[in-house]
Amino acid sequence: MVFRSHMKRALEEARAAADRGEVPIGAVIVSPEGRVVAAAGNRTRELNDPTAHAEILALREACAAAGSERLPGHDIYVTLEPCAMCAAAMAAARIRRIYYGAADPKSGGVAHGARVFTHPQAHHVPEVYDGISGEESAALLKTFFASRRGNGDES
Amino acid sequence: MVFRSHMKRALEEARAAADRGEVPIGAVIVSPEGRVVAAAGNRTRELNDPTAHAEILALREACAAAGSERLPGHDIYVTLEPCAMCAAAMAAARIRRIYYGAADPKSGGVAHGARVFTHPQAHHVPEVYDGISGEESAALLKTFFASRRGNGDES
Repeated sequence: MVFRSHMKRALEEARAAADRGEVPIGAVIVSPEGRVVAAAGNRTRELNDPTAHAEILALREACAAAGSERLPGHDIYVTLEPCAMCAAAMAAARIRRIYYGAADPKSGGVAHGARVFTHPQAHHVPEVYDGISGEESAALLKTFFASRRGNGDES
Repeated sequence: MVFRSHMKRALEEARAAADRGEVPIGAVIVSPEGRVVAAAGNRTRELNDPTAHAEILALREACAAAGSERLPGHDIYVTLEPCAMCAAAMAAARIRRIYYGAADPKSGGVAHGARVFTHPQAHHVPEVYDGISGEESAALLKTFFASRRGNGDES
């Protein structure tokens, strides 16, 4: 199943983010032809940029490569339910499908909180597939936060 | 009134954006000491970046200058009601107050649509002040879109 292999790549990005001391979330964008055109992990701390979520970095990379602010027919794979910022950015970029791993009741903006795609105002609503390798993604996050709490650094 | 002068600066950024062929929206971020630490207008077309809204560019600039992904005590002035992406980014950056101009029933995410700050999930809720120089902001947008329709370019 091809979507498993793309999510596997997103999980690799999440692990690399953890190794950099960032919250372990990764994202991959796939073109209509099935080619990976962008892959990124969180870099908010490294870049001092609250918008440097994996999804935003991947969207910016894919748009730069496409020479367009829109990515019709492109799919995004992300290890955690996107927050409202990232979900709205995906709509702006006209992403076709969102595949995500673990649910995020605390900060997710797709199935929780702002539920960005469920308002009559939403101009573009991607198809959403959740729970793809969700347990692996959740385990990465759990380990990361447990180790940080161990260091007294709870943020 | 100092907030009028900051909004005036944001309107200048919006006008400069229109001159570049971008949707005329501008944003300014002010430090707790009252200093303008970032100012930006939309650059989504120029940068081929759907996330390059005035607010996001200003947040990234201010965070880079501060060397931090958070801007406690900072206020943002923006000519149009922020969309869900920008509103969520402001929350992530811990912006203290949001002053905005015109309401945006079509794409706004503060008083419309996703209403990003009104969910129990919202960890950080800035104070929001709307309608600051709203008519001037709305007039800029109206003129811009009317001229584009005249060119047959309605986007």
